[in-house]
Amino acid sequence: MSGLVYEKEHTVKYYECDATKKISMPMLLNIMLYVSGEQGRMLGVSDDVVAEHGLSWIILQTEIKVNRLPEAHEKIRVMTQAQSYNKFFTYRDFKVYDEAGELCVTTNCTFAMMDFTQRKMVRIVDELIEPYKVEGTKKLIRTPKPVPVNQETAQSIDYRVRYLDIDGNQHVNNAKYLDWFLDSLGLDFIRQHQLKSINVKYEKEVGYGNMVQSLVSQEVLEDGQIATAHQIVNNGTLSCEASMVWEPLN
Amino acid sequence: MSGLVYEKEHTVKYYECDATKKISMPMLLNIMLYVSGEQGRMLGVSDDVVAEHGLSWIILQTEIKVNRLPEAHEKIRVMTQAQSYNKFFTYRDFKVYDEAGELCVTTNCTFAMMDFTQRKMVRIVDELIEPYKVEGTKKLIRTPKPVPVNQETAQSIDYRVRYLDIDGNQHVNNAKYLDWFLDSLGLDFIRQHQLKSINVKYEKEVGYGNMVQSLVSQEVLEDGQIATAHQIVNNGTLSCEASMVWEPLN
Repeated sequence: MSGLVYEKEHTVKYYECDATKKISMPMLLNIMLYVSGEQGRMLGVSDDVVAEHGLSWIILQTEIKVNRLPEAHEKIRVMTQAQSYNKFFTYRDFKVYDEAGELCVTTNCTFAMMDFTQRKMVRIVDELIEPYKVEGTKKLIRTPKPVPVNQETAQSIDYRVRYLDIDGNQHVNNAKYLDWFLDSLGLDFIRQHQLKSINVKYEKEVGYGNMVQSLVSQEVLEDGQIATAHQIVNNGTLSCEASMVWEPLN
Repeated sequence: MSGLVYEKEHTVKYYECDATKKISMPMLLNIMLYVSGEQGRMLGVSDDVVAEHGLSWIILQTEIKVNRLPEAHEKIRVMTQAQSYNKFFTYRDFKVYDEAGELCVTTNCTFAMMDFTQRKMVRIVDELIEPYKVEGTKKLIRTPKPVPVNQETAQSIDYRVRYLDIDGNQHVNNAKYLDWFLDSLGLDFIRQHQLKSINVKYEKEVGYGNMVQSLVSQEVLEDGQIATAHQIVNNGTLSCEASMVWEPLN
């Protein structure tokens, strides 16, 4: 059985939008994760409480499906709900609705718990998940992997990890990877295509000052949509991979 | 006489904070400018209405004084008020208060109107300023210039203008320059010092794909504070300059 539903309203700001005047994907991911953080706070299991156990929630994977990206001044409603959990993973959905009640964005996230001294995954602590009233199960949900980058045609751009890329957890913020992925496609591509879906798999955290490579390859699908495949590679190690589907705009 | 006062509450989010867990300066500037934009909307002279005249407000200079930077979950109150205007310039103050009513940040901004086809400054249109009920005057306010960069000791970092640096006005967002300035100081410096003030003067807009140089020099002041001086240079042309004062943390 799914857990407690939590939702929050948010007014989209000009500065949360990109050059296309729609909310940027990194900002949308930030807002969704904020709303799940707020649910934790309301239930007495805030990130601070989790930190008192020497732990923090980490995101392993996120799949985002986009019907429409909201614009500045729109009042959106972000709904979140944990779906199930097992020994190591918890699965959580997000839905973003516009003022007319239309579903704009659907997201599924897989979370795990990290011991932040040892920087490794640990078993989920029951008392930190119990308040969400979500069903424990032995079932693992198999989420599809991102489509791999075509290494033969891939292009690469370097990004140095900057001061503002680092969040309060002292590593590159989850939303930042989307920034690197999208920038490697270029503004013309983003203007000429509408994003339909993203599948991001986080592999290894990245720290301040690291120089990462953002690799990208493209493929035209049978239905005319474009699939892009992405990797962030940090000193030879895969940090994050993603694939996206785009629809050409006329 | 000063114009109408407008204020809005804002809850600081985790993702609006930097590695020091305080709100980042670029985000704070975004939020302040959002609040003045909201005043315009409320008074019937939103950015869209200004755009119907083929115009947009641009920021020429901003001086920010910091008592304390708020942290995540704090509820802040952002107050703004136009102070006066003349033929070409309007002066606006911002004050940021915390929940206890303590003044955290004070900001003075100088705005002008730009014709966005010709990309040049024009005389302020009366009907677009009248709703703010601010006094017209012939007096120009002389704002102090940022302290110049010491070219002999300056260090320089290159920044390629990325997709997300560009806002709906199709140029680099005003807040982005602060990001470049701060990053050029490095995370260790930012962790070890508390920002007291910033004076930013915008000279020339920067576009997508440009490669800019962020120059920075430092000087220790008599009282032990550190003055940093900054320039953004785009293909040999000065785009923006700034100076900051920092207090060493123990």
